[in-house]
Amino acid sequence: MAPPRRLSAERVTLAHGGGGKAMRDLVADVFVAAFRNPEMGELEDQARLSSAALAEPGAQLAFTTDSFVVDPVEFPGGDIGTIAVCGTVNDLAVGGARPLWLSAAFIIEEGVEVALLRRVAASMRASAEAAGVVIVTGDTKVVGRGSADKLFVTTSGVGVIPAGRRLAASRVRAGDVALVNGVLGDHGAAILAARGDLALTSDIVSDCRPLDGLMEAVLAAAPGVRAARDCTRGGLASALNEIAEAAGVGIELDEAALPLRDEAKGICEILGLDPLYLANEGTLVLFAPAGEAEAALAAMRGHPAGRGAVAIGRAVEAHPAVVVMRTLLGGRRIVDMLVGEQLPRIC
Amino acid sequence: MAPPRRLSAERVTLAHGGGGKAMRDLVADVFVAAFRNPEMGELEDQARLSSAALAEPGAQLAFTTDSFVVDPVEFPGGDIGTIAVCGTVNDLAVGGARPLWLSAAFIIEEGVEVALLRRVAASMRASAEAAGVVIVTGDTKVVGRGSADKLFVTTSGVGVIPAGRRLAASRVRAGDVALVNGVLGDHGAAILAARGDLALTSDIVSDCRPLDGLMEAVLAAAPGVRAARDCTRGGLASALNEIAEAAGVGIELDEAALPLRDEAKGICEILGLDPLYLANEGTLVLFAPAGEAEAALAAMRGHPAGRGAVAIGRAVEAHPAVVVMRTLLGGRRIVDMLVGEQLPRIC
Repeated sequence: MAPPRRLSAERVTLAHGGGGKAMRDLVADVFVAAFRNPEMGELEDQARLSSAALAEPGAQLAFTTDSFVVDPVEFPGGDIGTIAVCGTVNDLAVGGARPLWLSAAFIIEEGVEVALLRRVAASMRASAEAAGVVIVTGDTKVVGRGSADKLFVTTSGVGVIPAGRRLAASRVRAGDVALVNGVLGDHGAAILAARGDLALTSDIVSDCRPLDGLMEAVLAAAPGVRAARDCTRGGLASALNEIAEAAGVGIELDEAALPLRDEAKGICEILGLDPLYLANEGTLVLFAPAGEAEAALAAMRGHPAGRGAVAIGRAVEAHPAVVVMRTLLGGRRIVDMLVGEQLPRIC
Repeated sequence: MAPPRRLSAERVTLAHGGGGKAMRDLVADVFVAAFRNPEMGELEDQARLSSAALAEPGAQLAFTTDSFVVDPVEFPGGDIGTIAVCGTVNDLAVGGARPLWLSAAFIIEEGVEVALLRRVAASMRASAEAAGVVIVTGDTKVVGRGSADKLFVTTSGVGVIPAGRRLAASRVRAGDVALVNGVLGDHGAAILAARGDLALTSDIVSDCRPLDGLMEAVLAAAPGVRAARDCTRGGLASALNEIAEAAGVGIELDEAALPLRDEAKGICEILGLDPLYLANEGTLVLFAPAGEAEAALAAMRGHPAGRGAVAIGRAVEAHPAVVVMRTLLGGRRIVDMLVGEQLPRIC
């Protein structure tokens, strides 16, 4: 095809979503320029891909999708592009899949600066490179002013689960140890502070990062790991409740062991929030059989995304499907699933 | 997991996007209930899939995505769910892929009626069944009033391209015959009339339909078909311009042969639009080598989605990358790519 023409318009107009020349120029100038890769092949409406890993006997294809509507679009530690790539990579990784390819679909509000789109596309490219995945196909729609809030991004991901791996929440057994890879709640706290209307200042940056390398390291050292979940919307508390319910086990947490930042705890106290429900974008919880817990912990700590890994509790036979925390004061309280809405548009 | 609780709320609230109980209930009651299928397996954050077709030597994986923002969400002949499924199925099919699995991500405006979501989910299920694909994974986000316009849906699709198939716009050669499977412009005309603010009444319904069965029938009868494109945003004119540019050929259209409805022509005349640019959601153009054109045409006409198939023109050596129409009056005019925006939010 012809070389992309440089966009003269500085803001997106409805014409950029019309399927004609203006759209082709926007796509070529902003998105293809950022994502261009030999795996994209000819610019057809679909990517055509081959992977020897997918043809291995017993391998499964993993497929996942998420829409991202985070407000604000840019925040300390990343932007909507960073979490759109990391979020989908991590959904694949926590299931034991090796992420291969991503799609990216953009819904853009008329009037958005093209420079913002360029920054988001650059973030996506950087996060994809860090995760070892390729953005191979995409789409762009434009809606009128007031019909969307700046920019929504939907990513889907395809990965391969090697033969023999079967991580599932339902596989967790009493006695398994719960491990997290680092500090909890940084994404939620960073977004809260970035919204500005709370008159909070903070040095906390989002924990946005891909976790596929960390998961591979853990599974190499502790192949018996039962299940993992990234603690996004609803935070650690919601992830643990899902696992407890799926496995029919109780989960016991040690408050003293939880890696929480004083600053995040302070923000939560001011706002009446519970840090266990704060969203994360680069933090996961996994359950390892007791005999492999040390190996899993060591593997996490040996990886850049797991330096702060700690054991935070265990699965128990008592109180099936219920998560209980032993508090600093020696009491016990139930950590329920989030009922209402803590923080809209956190991801 | 526990059986889904029936939603009592009749409208979506921000809590339905919060990652907690309300969201789980909405997802279980509306989306899982509609899409539930053995291939979904356990409700992990990812679908885990196997296909012998993908493991065949020489087979390729096809991957595509589209966001849908059509306004209005419901229209004669379908709704946003119908086109979200058909659009992605068709993107796979026109590249020669057999669609296997879809993902579906929903961005919902606070206040939307749950009943609307149920209708859209039912449409998606019906279209997926018609296409022979399974919706295997999804996501739900909710944004505040005024931050989105009711409902946006993003689908991604995975399919398999059997060994030896290679459809690509660049493969079209002078002498190839251009065929369409039916009447042009019905989707665009139906949406225009449905918007109501144009004081138009019309009996036209959208042509929304999956085209994978049609493509399989054509490729069985005419395996030499070079390329196909579904004529969505930008219509037939944009699809032909893309092909002419990619292949470096000219394309000559016969106006007399174009299957246009008088009613659609009438709407276009009133509004100063050109029906060649009207969007379609179940209409494609393909190029067959002259020796296979009759076989391809017969195969199309033998399929329910191709009863109105006709030859509309051919690729020529003259005027490379330019589409020219021989008009009813014997003149010739250039059919350029759409420059600006004809109809925002047509899909």
